[in-house]
Amino acid sequence: MYDRPIGYFFATAAAGFKYTGREDLVFIGSDVEASAAGVFTSNRFQAAPVHVARANLAGRGKARGILVNAGQANACTGEEGIEDCRETLKLVAQGFDLEPEEILPASTGVIGERFSLEGWKRAAVDLFANASSRTPLDAAKAITTTDTFPKLAWRSFEAGGETVRVLGMAKGAGMICPNMATMLAFILTDATLPPDLWQEILRSAAEESFNRISVDGDTSTNDCLLGLANGRSEVDCSAEEAESLRFAVTEVCRELARLIVEDAEGGTKVITLRVQGAADASDAAKAARCVAHSPLVKTAFFGRDPNWGRIVAALGRSGAHFAPEEVEISISGRTVFQQGRPALEDVDSLLAPQMRRRDIVLRIDLGRGSGEYEMLTSDLSLDYVRINAEYRS
Amino acid sequence: MYDRPIGYFFATAAAGFKYTGREDLVFIGSDVEASAAGVFTSNRFQAAPVHVARANLAGRGKARGILVNAGQANACTGEEGIEDCRETLKLVAQGFDLEPEEILPASTGVIGERFSLEGWKRAAVDLFANASSRTPLDAAKAITTTDTFPKLAWRSFEAGGETVRVLGMAKGAGMICPNMATMLAFILTDATLPPDLWQEILRSAAEESFNRISVDGDTSTNDCLLGLANGRSEVDCSAEEAESLRFAVTEVCRELARLIVEDAEGGTKVITLRVQGAADASDAAKAARCVAHSPLVKTAFFGRDPNWGRIVAALGRSGAHFAPEEVEISISGRTVFQQGRPALEDVDSLLAPQMRRRDIVLRIDLGRGSGEYEMLTSDLSLDYVRINAEYRS
Repeated sequence: MYDRPIGYFFATAAAGFKYTGREDLVFIGSDVEASAAGVFTSNRFQAAPVHVARANLAGRGKARGILVNAGQANACTGEEGIEDCRETLKLVAQGFDLEPEEILPASTGVIGERFSLEGWKRAAVDLFANASSRTPLDAAKAITTTDTFPKLAWRSFEAGGETVRVLGMAKGAGMICPNMATMLAFILTDATLPPDLWQEILRSAAEESFNRISVDGDTSTNDCLLGLANGRSEVDCSAEEAESLRFAVTEVCRELARLIVEDAEGGTKVITLRVQGAADASDAAKAARCVAHSPLVKTAFFGRDPNWGRIVAALGRSGAHFAPEEVEISISGRTVFQQGRPALEDVDSLLAPQMRRRDIVLRIDLGRGSGEYEMLTSDLSLDYVRINAEYRS
Repeated sequence: MYDRPIGYFFATAAAGFKYTGREDLVFIGSDVEASAAGVFTSNRFQAAPVHVARANLAGRGKARGILVNAGQANACTGEEGIEDCRETLKLVAQGFDLEPEEILPASTGVIGERFSLEGWKRAAVDLFANASSRTPLDAAKAITTTDTFPKLAWRSFEAGGETVRVLGMAKGAGMICPNMATMLAFILTDATLPPDLWQEILRSAAEESFNRISVDGDTSTNDCLLGLANGRSEVDCSAEEAESLRFAVTEVCRELARLIVEDAEGGTKVITLRVQGAADASDAAKAARCVAHSPLVKTAFFGRDPNWGRIVAALGRSGAHFAPEEVEISISGRTVFQQGRPALEDVDSLLAPQMRRRDIVLRIDLGRGSGEYEMLTSDLSLDYVRINAEYRS
């Protein structure tokens, strides 16, 4: 079974935001005040819960819980949406004997709809009633929307004879659906450390994980990663153990990020894209993102077509610096393009087995310097279009 | 019938580059030396014909003809590809009694394959044989690849009692398919003007037309716009008539660009996207491109879904400057989003008739300044994925 950090409880309820016959409301509580941190969407339009979570974190860096609902995003709902969000925090805080400012809210679901506070009141009663009986997996299930499976990851490490546990959960079928606005992730640990270090660790973990996946290049109004560190393990991670914690948190985030790509809407492939030999890391990232976002590259992978011509074309418009004749491209270990021309006679036949696999490694060497960047992406399938064209109806 | 500029001839042949039973090789010749201009792909990988056309234009700005083949792009073919390209110019130049440097080459088709020069020799014989019997429409048909219709546009204007004619042809199903590397356009006029002015007019026309369409944001290794102005109308357009010519050329280019979006692979919609009220024109362009390239916005239009939530999300990550509560969005004349929230109660019902139309106008006012930008885009359909996943097999 997975390691469960000490001192957290999980409550769930069915509020009927969008779905019937399933739970869609979650409260994750810490027995004691925890160091709290958050990484939020860079989208110019930010949902009400993003505004409120930022405000509740600001300065203090402490929290007692996270409140999440699935089905309504509470985004593009104006000042009223922010008021609604604050009302829901009050409602839940009362039941758990907390202050509203001690709770960080997160929402995912349809943009532009306002909450029914009556519905919230009914559901809150259930939330209080089952606060001790639910598991992290129940919570991970309740925060899903178009996800086809719940997403949990965990790590633990030993420090001075004690165990520190890190547990993460996420929802998102590929950061791709901003009207089911979109990716949420929550990381819980029983490590002891101050808020500013916790914030820095969470941000660096996000950079290595959630910021390195792409399904369609869209980012949502609600994306957020929230973390609580309640110190209940009594292991101080503010000094030499900080790197062990950073490693564990990063691993948990990377695993969750990979699960999101594996669950990409309509996706049939998980493509690991490694750009190396770039002038610098930022050039490597530029090249990687341009290839990872190209609909033509993505449809080719869906079609099991080792189409280096489309990769080359995306690379060429990426703005990264390189000499075309120094670029080398390999797909799942076979070099397909080098010295400005095809490297294989019959690439279709020679790569047929690789292209049938779910996991594909695309390596691009720009032959310029030592800049590197790695990211994960999915393919673009008929089902992606079906899901996203028909979703609202 | 369309106006045909004086002093041009059109030759076509079937060389079997990729297709059988159709013509796929075109020579457009001018009776006299013409001012020549070109606008080329910004892709870092440039096809052999792009290199050679640039070289033949450089400094001189004069040409006698344009040689185009469809089915093989002669891109990513190394130094040998450039040699092959020069060989084909020699072959054709001999038959028409020209120098190879007087011809501008352009290719479209599969990336990475080398020409069969034997095939070129056989086809060149047919090219010489029918040089006087073919029409611009025959030529426009022969340069197509995945296009579902040939693309021709024309304008003429009067100056000092004389007529000046502008004729354009293009191929491309949406700049979208860099392994059928992709958009070619040729503009012919019998106006008289020097090469540098002609180049400047062609570039400004491209900026107002081909640079303002998007099917999937990919640009190809072969994209080019070539123009000949042979002066056979004997109307001097180097001074006050330059603006009449610019207007006519821009109109022809805009019409061709629109035809490309109408023929977008799998497209069911032509979306006119107008961003206004931006801090400046560059911010307006940034916002427009981000919305026009968003797969989620495009799949929503395919699904006839007036999904302003996805438009808002794309806008929010575009990097354009605005205050979310000042943004106003309308779809085909109806305001759907303003003051940070939905403007209509039941947008799905109220916009159902508009969303069924092929032509949709999406207007976004950023409420900030007077910057504007307009572009055309298509939707993202099941057929787009089908065509691009299955194309190579």
